Amino acid sequence: MATVKLWTDEEVAAVPVVKAVFDDIRATRKSDSVNNFWRGLANHPDLLKRTWTSIKQVMIEPGALDPLTKELVYIAVSSANSCSYCVHSHTAAARAKGLSDEQYAEFLAVVGMATETNSLANSLQIPVDREFLLG
Amino acid sequence: MATVKLWTDEEVAAVPVVKAVFDDIRATRKSDSVNNFWRGLANHPDLLKRTWTSIKQVMIEPGALDPLTKELVYIAVSSANSCSYCVHSHTAAARAKGLSDEQYAEFLAVVGMATETNSLANSLQIPVDREFLLG
Amino acid sequence: MATVKLWTDEEVAAVPVVKAVFDDIRATRKSDSVNNFWRGLANHPDLLKRTWTSIKQVMIEPGALDPLTKELVYIAVSSANSCSYCVHSHTAAARAKGLSDEQYAEFLAVVGMATETNSLANSLQIPVDREFLLG
Amino acid sequence: MATVKLWTDEEVAAVPVVKAVFDDIRATRKSDSVNNFWRGLANHPDLLKRTWTSIKQVMIEPGALDPLTKELVYIAVSSANSCSYCVHSHTAAARAKGLSDEQYAEFLAVVGMATETNSLANSLQIPVDREFLLG
Amino acid sequence: MATVKLWTDEEVAAVPVVKAVFDDIRATRKSDSVNNFWRGLANHPDLLKRTWTSIKQVMIEPGALDPLTKELVYIAVSSANSCSYCVHSHTAAARAKGLSDEQYAEFLAVVGMATETNSLANSLQIPVDREFLLG
Amino acid sequence: MATVKLWTDEEVAAVPVVKAVFDDIRATRKSDSVNNFWRGLANHPDLLKRTWTSIKQVMIEPGALDPLTKELVYIAVSSANSCSYCVHSHTAAARAKGLSDEQYAEFLAVVGMATETNSLANSLQIPVDREFLLG
Repeated sequence: MATVKLWTDEEVAAVPVVKAVFDDIRATRKSDSVNNFWRGLANHPDLLKRTWTSIKQVMIEPGALDPLTKELVYIAVSSANSCSYCVHSHTAAARAKGLSDEQYAEFLAVVGMATETNSLANSLQIPVDREFLLG
Repeated sequence: MATVKLWTDEEVAAVPVVKAVFDDIRATRKSDSVNNFWRGLANHPDLLKRTWTSIKQVMIEPGALDPLTKELVYIAVSSANSCSYCVHSHTAAARAKGLSDEQYAEFLAVVGMATETNSLANSLQIPVDREFLLG
Repeated sequence: MATVKLWTDEEVAAVPVVKAVFDDIRATRKSDSVNNFWRGLANHPDLLKRTWTSIKQVMIEPGALDPLTKELVYIAVSSANSCSYCVHSHTAAARAKGLSDEQYAEFLAVVGMATETNSLANSLQIPVDREFLLG
Repeated sequence: MATVKLWTDEEVAAVPVVKAVFDDIRATRKSDSVNNFWRGLANHPDLLKRTWTSIKQVMIEPGALDPLTKELVYIAVSSANSCSYCVHSHTAAARAKGLSDEQYAEFLAVVGMATETNSLANSLQIPVDREFLLG
Repeated sequence: MATVKLWTDEEVAAVPVVKAVFDDIRATRKSDSVNNFWRGLANHPDLLKRTWTSIKQVMIEPGALDPLTKELVYIAVSSANSCSYCVHSHTAAARAKGLSDEQYAEFLAVVGMATETNSLANSLQIPVDREFLLG
Repeated sequence: MATVKLWTDEEVAAVPVVKAVFDDIRATRKSDSVNNFWRGLANHPDLLKRTWTSIKQVMIEPGALDPLTKELVYIAVSSANSCSYCVHSHTAAARAKGLSDEQYAEFLAVVGMATETNSLANSLQIPVDREFLLG
């Protein structure tokens, strides 16, 4: 249960600045469905607009990393931050972008090993090797 | 400064079970250098052996994800977990595997946006959409 | 579902040391309602008493920060720590203390930017500027 | 030691898009000093520009929360995320905006109690009270 | 709701490598019940096998720490990482291994104080005392 | 470098309420040395006093858990929260209380496995088994 109201399409339609963002989400994703994250942010139009603009630029516009790699990085961060919503939504997004069972298994193994070695390095307070430092 | 002694090559050479792991690290990585993480784990030979065996299987053996993608997932987790050692060592590893400046910039943008939206979803306690749940 | 029993008012009434804390919670807050957090801590009377004493001193007694600012700091920490219960209860508390929609939107924007720049600074391992260090 | 080069003023001056952001940082803050965070982001001009634009909008433009409250929220998040750089830089910023010793002591007490009760609520898995849920 | 299918006993029986792990879990724990964590990992047989092998070695085989202490350490980490599933399952395991109400209360008090002082030390950026450093 | 002044013994001696806490720390621990954490908290006498009173009650007074187990729980939480100061100081404390190399190795293995399975359970969003829920 959210701490804010999740806006219905009718409520969205009544506020032009929110409607404009929702229209762009639908057009960009070529889908009529808009997920709850945006329906919660609709309570705060400026935050909604800034967040969508950044997400569109970072996650959707073509760049130097392929879309699936970006989704995997996104899920890795979301899992480490215990964001249940984000893990669910971006795992679904990764599957829609072609994530195979083999890739998912390997991804989980990497995330698991990274967190394990993070905890060992933090527990042992290992100093950074000179070779890893710049210049 | 570590909470444990970092083993020198001479100390490693005196303990066969530790030496065997260090030999395998050197042979597998085709490099004479062994970084501090393993020199700290050397205090605990069983943990050293189990950790290296898993890291080798997960990060080095060929699989469904390419090596650079695995390093990016590793750094993403390490940054979210504030593991300074791990961020340094795996950013160096990613560069050795060909990470370009453009890819690194895009990776940082994804990590940044993921953590930002994680915090928004967690602050608003957005409920998971039905469409993201399995059948 | 909690890992411990949540005490009913009848159970509370039967244990004087617990009842005394619940009476003080009700008197201090001028409300008959006592939320689940305290009903869970009731299983451990010493912990209940010490925690309530500290919360009362830190969050309720007048001090150098106004009550709403303290609630915002509380939610910020709770969101970063992924404590769903705490986000819910302290967002409700902030609203009861007058949090406006505009303030909440701005708060969310600050939390989001802070987490994003945290992840960038941690990913890039930026060294602290001399000017930020004390004398 | 950063994972990237920290740009000097000479290097900044040679790249117009980076120079434009640095000029705006200096003009907005009315200070000639530009801290290391921006010198690290300078390696990635798009990320630099987008981050500064957002920070300026969220942290500097007048809004519904006063500047000191925003800094306290920022430090709270940064401490919870173990971002040493961010804790240093925003504690300095809070002091520059008038944070008194009494306010700082109270802020620390709130952050400490919030993290403690976060861990208790997460350990006990306390369910959210109905009264904290919307509508 | 998991991001993957949770395997039923019938599905497990049809895949020998998965069945072998489940048989070992049942034999080792002397219980017919296998909890959801393993039913989710069953989608990825290699990860399932490696994880179970490590858990068995670390948590079940006799060692230098008694089983209850290991469970308490496990819950402490799980609470700090906001892993609801892990807190539930290992609190149940600790109780099955004899955790008393008095021990649980004291454990919670330690976890709470540790997180509180963690946040104070991180907020104040206290430097490590020379006496805590090796050699 | 701390965000606050670390008080010298001379400065402590000049403020009776701070001196009283330092005297009690020295008497309780039977040691003349007072570590930096308390020298930083000395800037905020109320917080200093409340924190020391709680730490003394939770960590030092005899209870249901032995002192070494409490230190291990403390380090586990501190490592998960990336508190470098706390990891250093409580690892030193655990050693002073008799932590053997074998126990430390096993502790590290438990912490590592817990964080790894935390990340797997969080990534897969495994639902809690009915058997782990109370009554």
